[in-house]
Amino acid sequence: MTHHRSAERDNDQGLVLALDIGGTKLAAGVVRADGRALSFAACPTAVQEGPDAALKRLFELGRSVLDEAGVAPGQLRGTGIGCGGPLDGEAGVLICPPHLPGWLDVPVVDLAVEAYGRPAVLDNDGTAGAAGEWRFGAGRGSDSLLYLTVSTGIGGGAVLGGRTFRGAAGNGGEPGHVLVRSDGRPCRSCGRRGCLEAYASGTSIAERAGEAVAEAAAAGTDTALAGLDPLTAADVAAAARRGDPVAVAVWEETVTALGSGLTTLVNVFEPEVVVLGGGVTRTGEQLLGPVRRIVAEQAMGPAAAAARLTVAAGGDRAGVLGAAAIAFERLDPAP
Amino acid sequence: MTHHRSAERDNDQGLVLALDIGGTKLAAGVVRADGRALSFAACPTAVQEGPDAALKRLFELGRSVLDEAGVAPGQLRGTGIGCGGPLDGEAGVLICPPHLPGWLDVPVVDLAVEAYGRPAVLDNDGTAGAAGEWRFGAGRGSDSLLYLTVSTGIGGGAVLGGRTFRGAAGNGGEPGHVLVRSDGRPCRSCGRRGCLEAYASGTSIAERAGEAVAEAAAAGTDTALAGLDPLTAADVAAAARRGDPVAVAVWEETVTALGSGLTTLVNVFEPEVVVLGGGVTRTGEQLLGPVRRIVAEQAMGPAAAAARLTVAAGGDRAGVLGAAAIAFERLDPAP
Repeated sequence: MTHHRSAERDNDQGLVLALDIGGTKLAAGVVRADGRALSFAACPTAVQEGPDAALKRLFELGRSVLDEAGVAPGQLRGTGIGCGGPLDGEAGVLICPPHLPGWLDVPVVDLAVEAYGRPAVLDNDGTAGAAGEWRFGAGRGSDSLLYLTVSTGIGGGAVLGGRTFRGAAGNGGEPGHVLVRSDGRPCRSCGRRGCLEAYASGTSIAERAGEAVAEAAAAGTDTALAGLDPLTAADVAAAARRGDPVAVAVWEETVTALGSGLTTLVNVFEPEVVVLGGGVTRTGEQLLGPVRRIVAEQAMGPAAAAARLTVAAGGDRAGVLGAAAIAFERLDPAP
Repeated sequence: MTHHRSAERDNDQGLVLALDIGGTKLAAGVVRADGRALSFAACPTAVQEGPDAALKRLFELGRSVLDEAGVAPGQLRGTGIGCGGPLDGEAGVLICPPHLPGWLDVPVVDLAVEAYGRPAVLDNDGTAGAAGEWRFGAGRGSDSLLYLTVSTGIGGGAVLGGRTFRGAAGNGGEPGHVLVRSDGRPCRSCGRRGCLEAYASGTSIAERAGEAVAEAAAAGTDTALAGLDPLTAADVAAAARRGDPVAVAVWEETVTALGSGLTTLVNVFEPEVVVLGGGVTRTGEQLLGPVRRIVAEQAMGPAAAAARLTVAAGGDRAGVLGAAAIAFERLDPAP
């Protein structure tokens, strides 16, 4: 038996169930209007099993966090879902997310409505992350915020003039796809050469480090990165901190790319706050310090002066808090 | 004697006086809420005479278009002023526009209030241009619009979700300052290397053509551009149309840069309409055709599919219509 919370215990904005669909991880939580998660859980996506199996697991994960929080589905304002695009946020359909191969035209909102009997909304996870950091996190109280998640890929979104920015295509902008190097490396997500994502994502850091290790081996240069398998972005950051020259070069290229991309984004969005989330930002000031310096030097004066660069407050729960934020934004208060 | 219009002859949104302060030209007009200009006039800025002389001439120009339209200042909803940034749109002060050397902290709004006895507002001319094309021009009825003016420099602005975008620094974004070539030519306005403005502005086209002519002379290659003084962007476009290989190379570099910059901008803003204005766009499809192809090929699928590229409807009056648009947006209806 589950003990169901009384409405008095929560504020009058109600509670939402927040679901985050990632390429490697599914996450769920029950979140209050002030951003407090009453419960949180995550499990592997196991994307190779296809959408039916993964969504079954996601909705079970949702039920488990409802139970943990002592909340019945009927008490929910509704469900918020964040997922990588392209997606149709109004129809609530995942179109063909590149991190979820084989998930074509999945009507995830209808399925969530069926699962919990409450309304549901879907947004790009970058858009949701921006909304979450603005409502609950590092951008609270600001008028405009640019959010960038530097992870397997680079996603993001924006809140402009106090409103979540969604764009005409409904994906709320793709800040990972600004040019940082003309005729540079091809970008796996969009096909263009020289995107920010092709240089500063975790995947790219690991890949460029692998190439640098091979070059070092051919040149007979020692590097602490040699022999690491898998070789990750975190390995590169750690070796760079210890002064390994191969790692330092890869890290500097990463920081230069991120600084250049953010300079472009700060020039065009003139945000009050730039929030950086995702695994790569766990390196903290090792990443943020030089990136801040580049933006301060290269962005246009008034835009650079207005923008404060900081790390996401949501941490590992940023995806769930983002999904909660769009639910509070888009769904009517619970009955 | 001036015959003053009766209120009945105009719609109930009133009339505004619109003033556009450019680096080479001052323009003024009396504009109705439907975007019809009842009068229009322009004169040289003569920037070397300093702000006092130029503003005296601007306010006289304003009086002349009021007279021409048969409108008394007291009948105005107010005055809208567009000018290049950086500026403080809320305080109504020009800070230090690079195209107006020596104009430091000019309180242009207070001066306009004094001149006409009616309220006045100031915005970045790129922001005003975006508002003008959205309200009166090529982006009418759209939800989101990106405006780029390709002229002496490259400015612009955006309307997002039906609201004029102003940014935390109040300059509404500087879309001319996205990276198009890493380690490229230095940008005169912002100091960074490889900005869109450093490749596709009229100034840059002429400058790069000058360099190409010198190289052609050194190599003994003939070009129709040799001996033209001044050599303008329009000369380059005309010679490229006739197949002059030196001009073709400069034009192709221009188009590639503009296509690349717009790809980045379309990815991050996901606009419904992209409006291109400014002198360089008088070349029409010679510019727009290849730029459209590059954006369609390189921008992310949903964003590219959503974006319609077109030329500004305002033509030579775009600045005045933009200034009128921000006046209608920001000023209360006339008494």
